[in-house]
Amino acid sequence: MVQFSQSVKFFRSSAVRDLMSVAIKPDVISFAGGMPGNELFPVSEMEELYAQLPLAEKQMAFQYGPTPGYPPLLDSLTDYLRRKGFPVDKNKLLITTGSLQAIYILTKIFIDPGNIIVTENPSFVGALSAFSSFQAALHSIPLRSDGIDCAMLESYLKSDEAQNVKFIYLTPNFHNPAGILYSRENRRKVAEIAGRFGVPVIEDDAYGELYFEKEMKELVTPLKVLYEDTCTICTVGSFSKIVGPGFRLGWMLVPPEIYKQAELCKQSIDACSPNFTQVLADAFLRSGKMEVYIEKLREIYRKRKNSMVAAIKRYFPEEVGWNDPQGGFYIWCSVPSSVNVIEVLQKCMEQGAIYVIGQTFDPDAKDTTHFRLSFSNTPEEKIEEGIRILGNVLKQSLKMEK
Amino acid sequence: MVQFSQSVKFFRSSAVRDLMSVAIKPDVISFAGGMPGNELFPVSEMEELYAQLPLAEKQMAFQYGPTPGYPPLLDSLTDYLRRKGFPVDKNKLLITTGSLQAIYILTKIFIDPGNIIVTENPSFVGALSAFSSFQAALHSIPLRSDGIDCAMLESYLKSDEAQNVKFIYLTPNFHNPAGILYSRENRRKVAEIAGRFGVPVIEDDAYGELYFEKEMKELVTPLKVLYEDTCTICTVGSFSKIVGPGFRLGWMLVPPEIYKQAELCKQSIDACSPNFTQVLADAFLRSGKMEVYIEKLREIYRKRKNSMVAAIKRYFPEEVGWNDPQGGFYIWCSVPSSVNVIEVLQKCMEQGAIYVIGQTFDPDAKDTTHFRLSFSNTPEEKIEEGIRILGNVLKQSLKMEK
Repeated sequence: MVQFSQSVKFFRSSAVRDLMSVAIKPDVISFAGGMPGNELFPVSEMEELYAQLPLAEKQMAFQYGPTPGYPPLLDSLTDYLRRKGFPVDKNKLLITTGSLQAIYILTKIFIDPGNIIVTENPSFVGALSAFSSFQAALHSIPLRSDGIDCAMLESYLKSDEAQNVKFIYLTPNFHNPAGILYSRENRRKVAEIAGRFGVPVIEDDAYGELYFEKEMKELVTPLKVLYEDTCTICTVGSFSKIVGPGFRLGWMLVPPEIYKQAELCKQSIDACSPNFTQVLADAFLRSGKMEVYIEKLREIYRKRKNSMVAAIKRYFPEEVGWNDPQGGFYIWCSVPSSVNVIEVLQKCMEQGAIYVIGQTFDPDAKDTTHFRLSFSNTPEEKIEEGIRILGNVLKQSLKMEK
Repeated sequence: MVQFSQSVKFFRSSAVRDLMSVAIKPDVISFAGGMPGNELFPVSEMEELYAQLPLAEKQMAFQYGPTPGYPPLLDSLTDYLRRKGFPVDKNKLLITTGSLQAIYILTKIFIDPGNIIVTENPSFVGALSAFSSFQAALHSIPLRSDGIDCAMLESYLKSDEAQNVKFIYLTPNFHNPAGILYSRENRRKVAEIAGRFGVPVIEDDAYGELYFEKEMKELVTPLKVLYEDTCTICTVGSFSKIVGPGFRLGWMLVPPEIYKQAELCKQSIDACSPNFTQVLADAFLRSGKMEVYIEKLREIYRKRKNSMVAAIKRYFPEEVGWNDPQGGFYIWCSVPSSVNVIEVLQKCMEQGAIYVIGQTFDPDAKDTTHFRLSFSNTPEEKIEEGIRILGNVLKQSLKMEK
């Protein structure tokens, strides 16, 4: 018989994936997947850019690259991050096979079985599965409308158990799934606390570019830009939301001593990230077309969010709570505990609309009163129809409870 | 201070990578990298195929795919493997981010710290780094000209220590770095022994397609095809050598119970392999152009190998041993223990030729009497020049010893 390692007992499945496969059916309105709509990808821009590349660069696209990344992309991404204020000279940049791999690598270099990771509750399901695969113990701190509960964080870090905390994992910008943005004050506090207790922060900034209004630009400034000298910060970012997830490209910007281990670790996982998509991403960045494209996305996602909010106001019963996000992909909803969120989802699926239940994003897998709606990959005209279905099922469910 | 996990102490750097970065200098003749020559990639074929794809498929290339792989590629690769005799119906196929990731995933699901992996000596440096990153203990068995030493394998598996062996890692076809091909008899024996002791085999078949003569076709039949019912076999394969490493695409064909854990594991590492290159690889496979392309590669690599063998015969001192491979990328050379292989490499680098020393491929990192020459990414006209340099340095080194 085949004997598996201890770690397989800790593997955590992502229910999102199963729902995403349902989403492939064209007749289902999906608010499930945390991904851009297929119709939004810069297909023709990319085709044009590739066609113009010299043959030598096209050939490089087929070849192995250095583990840290395709050198021209490292250069162009460094310039891009420098313009955003990131401390690129004091840190090192590593291109990863998606930002999940960046999180996975950092977990591998920091976590032995039983070590503790502090997460938000709710938290990104991909990160939770990476953490669990290393047999980490998760201690989750509730998320408020302006960020993590800093009083609870501080109180926990004072406890004896917290000696065993290896890092704090945070998503300050347009949180997945909670949709919130950390306030300036919360950013300052959390960095100060992490610095005081000497705990590194992994900052996940997959959504920071996707604010809806120009005035927001200042408010999404990453911790790494603001508090580099206050605590140890490893920032991970992604091309998935601003080019396409199919490129499988992300990055980490980390202090040199962490980079050194991360690079060795990546050598053992997949040797290097795909050069083919790195060549394309580099061409996109250098052309200046990426910034134009992101501007277009902001406008589209703002409209989709507005459509969803308008439909929620129209169709959701008042007992259902929700937030109005200022960027990103998600609206996070809460229902009274009398509502069975799994039954509601099943009825919605029968009627042609899907989303993801809160349990998926709960580090303790206990949540029964939330669900996540993604507006990113559904055209405006379908959003109202899907929210109408969901609203009616929720109303029925609440009525039955009375 | 940052505290790292135990595993970082076991990270193993691949010296090959550093040499590959030297190889980027155009004036150095490199026999170092185990990669196709840039000029060989099917750049125009792929551009043509992509241009012909319907828009919906191009859009899918930018999107997340299911963790097991882009469904059309899973189908086309299944057909391809079925034609080669693989038991595709009794097993499950998982597309991975390069075949190294397949090896890494299998290591993660089988190995706890201190568990033993039996490897060949020498062995693929990427696999060794994956194994070490999980704190595996490596027990290496010498490789002979017809495969692993089966008597030593059997004797070791009888020992008490071997209770702790979790799998055997083998490369029966055109071994990296040893260049050898397992004989039919050695294949039979090793499968029989693995089955008798109940130890799974990880079979790495990255090079099986690259035989030089048509008559070889039967001799490269993988263990998985021949001995599926004799022992548990996980076969890993790669698109790196038959399309391009920059695609970062590999696969594993494994029993369903192993697949289940491997798929969950992959979810935690990078969620899915790059859809962009999966769409391209699928188009390449379906078009029938891949088989034509591989045929062309066989011819080119055969010529390059012949050039290298001719130059070795001409320039190497007779004290240097080497093999004449029937496929793959590599010639494995041995020198008398009086020769300092590191000094020889340094002198060669000064004179404009590089390769990789044997220590890199030794699980115990002790080898001082071998080096690996790769003929795959050097045009014929440069091969003679590089081997002349190496031959002269070797002659000098041997003379100095006398």
